[in-house]
Amino acid sequence: MPPQEIQEIYSHNVQQVLDLTGIFVFAVAGALMAVRKNFDVIGIVLLAEVTALGGGVIRDLIIGDVPPAAFDDLGYFSTPLFAAGLVFFLHPQVERISRTIDIFDAAGLGLFCVTGTAKAFAYGLGPVQATALGITTAVGGGAIRDVLAREVPVLLRWDREIYTVPALVGAALVAVLVETGNFNAYTATAAAVFAFAFRVLALHKGWRAPRAWRRNSEVRGDFD
Amino acid sequence: MPPQEIQEIYSHNVQQVLDLTGIFVFAVAGALMAVRKNFDVIGIVLLAEVTALGGGVIRDLIIGDVPPAAFDDLGYFSTPLFAAGLVFFLHPQVERISRTIDIFDAAGLGLFCVTGTAKAFAYGLGPVQATALGITTAVGGGAIRDVLAREVPVLLRWDREIYTVPALVGAALVAVLVETGNFNAYTATAAAVFAFAFRVLALHKGWRAPRAWRRNSEVRGDFD
Amino acid sequence: MPPQEIQEIYSHNVQQVLDLTGIFVFAVAGALMAVRKNFDVIGIVLLAEVTALGGGVIRDLIIGDVPPAAFDDLGYFSTPLFAAGLVFFLHPQVERISRTIDIFDAAGLGLFCVTGTAKAFAYGLGPVQATALGITTAVGGGAIRDVLAREVPVLLRWDREIYTVPALVGAALVAVLVETGNFNAYTATAAAVFAFAFRVLALHKGWRAPRAWRRNSEVRGDFD
Repeated sequence: MPPQEIQEIYSHNVQQVLDLTGIFVFAVAGALMAVRKNFDVIGIVLLAEVTALGGGVIRDLIIGDVPPAAFDDLGYFSTPLFAAGLVFFLHPQVERISRTIDIFDAAGLGLFCVTGTAKAFAYGLGPVQATALGITTAVGGGAIRDVLAREVPVLLRWDREIYTVPALVGAALVAVLVETGNFNAYTATAAAVFAFAFRVLALHKGWRAPRAWRRNSEVRGDFD
Repeated sequence: MPPQEIQEIYSHNVQQVLDLTGIFVFAVAGALMAVRKNFDVIGIVLLAEVTALGGGVIRDLIIGDVPPAAFDDLGYFSTPLFAAGLVFFLHPQVERISRTIDIFDAAGLGLFCVTGTAKAFAYGLGPVQATALGITTAVGGGAIRDVLAREVPVLLRWDREIYTVPALVGAALVAVLVETGNFNAYTATAAAVFAFAFRVLALHKGWRAPRAWRRNSEVRGDFD
Repeated sequence: MPPQEIQEIYSHNVQQVLDLTGIFVFAVAGALMAVRKNFDVIGIVLLAEVTALGGGVIRDLIIGDVPPAAFDDLGYFSTPLFAAGLVFFLHPQVERISRTIDIFDAAGLGLFCVTGTAKAFAYGLGPVQATALGITTAVGGGAIRDVLAREVPVLLRWDREIYTVPALVGAALVAVLVETGNFNAYTATAAAVFAFAFRVLALHKGWRAPRAWRRNSEVRGDFD
């Protein structure tokens, strides 16, 4: 299918609602991390912004869409600001619903891996590269957040429920759909829902990815 | 006002003196961090370079000015080298005047938030985005320095005098000046001086930004 | 010499074999770090990819070659995947030959500092800037790996054999060769071999770079 159509499977309004929802939930996750690390209000805002927008900015720099989309639309900037303000005042309440936050974050993951892969296709990248950029869009902001907050990135840790695999599956589904000419608003939504459900199930069931072969008995305590 | 004029409010020579001054003081701060962390001479040079040039390189990648300005002019590269050499031999003396260094660093902060915002405007970005990139120019190099040296970035910590807020104020002043057509060499200088004075006052008075609502009594010890 | 010829000193096939060799050994080093840090299989793959491709991606973003070369050729993506799989199953054997890995890593260092510098020249950068980007290509991926794994980057530590200096010498040799019109397949190979041998000798002899003047007696214990 023609590249320019790949990105426009949703109407502009639907796309924007989806984007802003994903940005909002990622920003809440970033702001909560800042509160837990005892950062000040500036740290809360900065961590909300980079968590929500970081993955997309890296993707856009790599595909050559400059300035990145995050710099095109004021809504992209102000949504994390709003999320940061909410967390600043209501963090005890937000912490109490942190299982709910995990669900929202899973929604952001599902959404971003699909839209990220689609955008990379729209800029002419091949299916494997587009998949890689879909994963980057979904997990990149969280990785920057963890590096700035001096945490081991969640996506590398074996003692956390799998995070990258659902994004990989969602992105790969999009690649298959585009390559077979079946990518449209319905199949894209299905791919996002599948990645979302995969992540929620992984959280619920405590699914983890294996560590290196014959390494399971050792405890290193690297994650304190 | 026409974008191309925004960046050219100073004569080329004045602009270069200001840029190199900011780069020099940021490089000294980076080199000092490397000495304190016991890095070798290569680490001192690398940390001086990324501290001095990192913020501007990120800005230029985002606005699409490639290769970044830091790669255009040999002075941009050699100034941090010179600063690193100075610190290598004279670090005890430099440490002794570290309050003076803080003053110089504040000058770099004031200068870079103004020139960074102006350059983003010159590349067609809107006022909010240009402000964000002005802040990035001013604080980005220091953030990379802290990440490489495995420190919690100063700009996130509540137990440090405010650093990002003066840059934000300086950048926002530039945005207002440009939008109202009042941006020129005099008002730009005034904005830089205001951000500089704000930072120096914050250092002198120990101004800090608030942490999240109702979180002030807890001590977490995350910053050791 | 004309820029476009600088990058084409080797035949396409030779160039590709050299590139993939460098990518493979860097990926093995990244995957081994992930195993040592007890990351899961996803962490092993991600760390292999960023270690192998990170330096080149930064170089390509800075010179404006987007999408970066790593996104052009499927071999660039699949080689680290293969290396990660190998380390996943054979890590005890690979650890046992870690001196051999160090030799391979030195080969990657020698190769990448030469090809990175040549590519920067081909995109019109000056000799000093091209040298800086050659060093970035050689050491950038390892720096990202260390930051993600929450290690102090090897290239900053005084208690490690010199790593950046051989890359600097190799890159500077290329710059001199290009500027004097003597850059060709033979001299380029010689520069890469020189950087490689320099690094191997540094490992063998335990060469270290000096720390700041009069700082040698202090022990800070920052590297645990």
